[in-house]
Amino acid sequence: MPDSSRYLQLQQIYQKELFEYVLPFWLNNSLDWKNGGYYCCLTRDGRIYETDKFAWMLGRELWTMSKMYNVYGRSSMYLDAARLGAEFIQKYAFTADNDVYFSFTEYGDPLVHPYNIFSECFICVGLAEYYRASQEEWAKEKAISVYRRIQERKKNPKGIWTKQISGKRAYSPLNMTMIEFMMFRELQGIVPDAELHAILNYNIDHFFSVHVDYPNRRVLERPLPDGRHDFSHMEGRLMTPGHTLETMWFLLDILISLGDDVHAHQITDIMLDTINFGWDEQLGGIPLYKDALNLPTEKLESNQRQWWVHAEALCSMLLAFKYTKNPVFWSWFTKIHEYTFSHFPDHEFGEWYGYLDRHGEPEFTVKGSKFKTAYHLPRALMQCDLWLGELLQEQPSDSI
Amino acid sequence: MPDSSRYLQLQQIYQKELFEYVLPFWLNNSLDWKNGGYYCCLTRDGRIYETDKFAWMLGRELWTMSKMYNVYGRSSMYLDAARLGAEFIQKYAFTADNDVYFSFTEYGDPLVHPYNIFSECFICVGLAEYYRASQEEWAKEKAISVYRRIQERKKNPKGIWTKQISGKRAYSPLNMTMIEFMMFRELQGIVPDAELHAILNYNIDHFFSVHVDYPNRRVLERPLPDGRHDFSHMEGRLMTPGHTLETMWFLLDILISLGDDVHAHQITDIMLDTINFGWDEQLGGIPLYKDALNLPTEKLESNQRQWWVHAEALCSMLLAFKYTKNPVFWSWFTKIHEYTFSHFPDHEFGEWYGYLDRHGEPEFTVKGSKFKTAYHLPRALMQCDLWLGELLQEQPSDSI
Repeated sequence: MPDSSRYLQLQQIYQKELFEYVLPFWLNNSLDWKNGGYYCCLTRDGRIYETDKFAWMLGRELWTMSKMYNVYGRSSMYLDAARLGAEFIQKYAFTADNDVYFSFTEYGDPLVHPYNIFSECFICVGLAEYYRASQEEWAKEKAISVYRRIQERKKNPKGIWTKQISGKRAYSPLNMTMIEFMMFRELQGIVPDAELHAILNYNIDHFFSVHVDYPNRRVLERPLPDGRHDFSHMEGRLMTPGHTLETMWFLLDILISLGDDVHAHQITDIMLDTINFGWDEQLGGIPLYKDALNLPTEKLESNQRQWWVHAEALCSMLLAFKYTKNPVFWSWFTKIHEYTFSHFPDHEFGEWYGYLDRHGEPEFTVKGSKFKTAYHLPRALMQCDLWLGELLQEQPSDSI
Repeated sequence: MPDSSRYLQLQQIYQKELFEYVLPFWLNNSLDWKNGGYYCCLTRDGRIYETDKFAWMLGRELWTMSKMYNVYGRSSMYLDAARLGAEFIQKYAFTADNDVYFSFTEYGDPLVHPYNIFSECFICVGLAEYYRASQEEWAKEKAISVYRRIQERKKNPKGIWTKQISGKRAYSPLNMTMIEFMMFRELQGIVPDAELHAILNYNIDHFFSVHVDYPNRRVLERPLPDGRHDFSHMEGRLMTPGHTLETMWFLLDILISLGDDVHAHQITDIMLDTINFGWDEQLGGIPLYKDALNLPTEKLESNQRQWWVHAEALCSMLLAFKYTKNPVFWSWFTKIHEYTFSHFPDHEFGEWYGYLDRHGEPEFTVKGSKFKTAYHLPRALMQCDLWLGELLQEQPSDSI
């Protein structure tokens, strides 16, 4: 079992990574002081290689900058950065129906229709956190109205852009459940409690009755609506260990806050089986996708070791350890930590490489892209910093 | 310069690969004698890992089986295989509008709407080649009617599933032009000449006035409609060397048949610059995607060495050599041949690996997938066999 000095040593590593290498990269390179909003497509050394802006990425960076302001003391540097995103979103992001365009030129001219409901989700939590930072009422009201619009749209999230023929292969995808847990954590105090808890209760029930495969202690990414797993098709067999672990640490955190120890222990059990399944013992690291029966997947990037997968895995193992004090979680946390911190960080230019090949070599050196901005990594560094701090607090004071 | 014995030696290699390792893999593993049609998702050793069927793949394998029958003597093995695909397509592929569903269960139940016009294109040429094999009039009539439907739809190929906001980033994509050249080569004698040539003339003019960047001797994958290249956005900078070379050998073959030596020589010049740009001198092989300015691409599979890229590159270099007799093309052909034949074939189980990593190691061992069936590879092996045979014929007989 770790002692206080080990917690403190690790906490300093996470803080240093966050404040010296990660946040400065985004503050220095992503902020568009001229047009508002954030650039996200950045080379290894922070040059912009694409000026378009993407709703997911705008909402995510807005969340991160606001959260930094709210968690680490009210530095105007973070609030100014947050405001840049919030005002761009306010001006340009929304259609008349309160949906969110998928992407924009750097000037805010919309490029792609709102075919993806996760645009709304990230904008929603970004605005909620910005409201906590700025106390600007419009941001709170908008977060609430976008949340309600998501609840209307979620049964048919792609709307007219749905390619699947209705009723065929009607899997119940984990991503919507995951994002509902994420939004619950972020919207408390913004959306009325009764409304938020009714939706949470539905999702907890749905998760445990449809996504959890108890006999095999795993979370099904795409179960059938009755909870059976369709292993006869590759879509039904697709496993995404990083995604599952991300979902589970959101949910574990919620269950702990609700005092639901029965479900919480089920989750930590499944987390353990997930990391055992997901970790590549031969080459190290966690591949992006796996097939449940070890057959081929249809995803050409399956073998990549991506930054966000490892960031979420760190959160899941640390929270499971903090909750259970079971040393197996500490052992996994430190094993993932060693791999992650020896392969992903780039202390020359800041931020982490996003895309390692299966041998752990950076396959691409980009720091930001249509899919990568200031979100998973700073969130994980913050969470681990805070949880390590709490573990430190729990120690008898003479052990420090 | 190569001599007859070299041509003959290579021709035997291409024939052996086609007849001993590639066609048997598909004949043994892909044919669904029970439900009709073809399975395409096959493991390294030919086991089916996904039973769904895909219109692109159905049309492509139908073309290949029919072509084998038409080119290499009328063996019932190929015609029976072709008929399996043709009848499945006839029964299940079409909507009431003559569009083609994207995918189906193994029983023919449609799964995904016809959002992709290339489904129609591959079904069209598959049926045309099947008509040549079977003389079944319905196949000819259907090929013609599908071709006409493609011509109606091509200005708005994704129809209601278009995500791009109308008029924004209106690039003129090479894939439609490429497929029109492919269809011209395949539909002669099926679609009336006047109709086919009017469309060809439009496409040749469009290609040379919009896609060819004369000063830099390259083909623009996504030019603006006036032929300017939009290097300020990653979409506009995306280069796909394999795709460009595939387009150019179709077109070169057409220009040679039309006696248009001026354009044909322009094409061979650009082919040379394309392979110089596309070939990775450091690691060997041709990556799937590159950025025109060597900035990052948005494609996570950019570094992969894919089978079809190398198959199309072989065709382009061999045809350019056959036409120009310039030894630089022979030198490229043999260089690509050495890399390709030492990395892709799997003589243990047949067919080629589809997906090597940048170091030339098979990253995935699948032989067939949603994207890979009996098409690029057998076509390239056939073409190279036929062209090597023609080169052999051109030699003075005493040199053999």
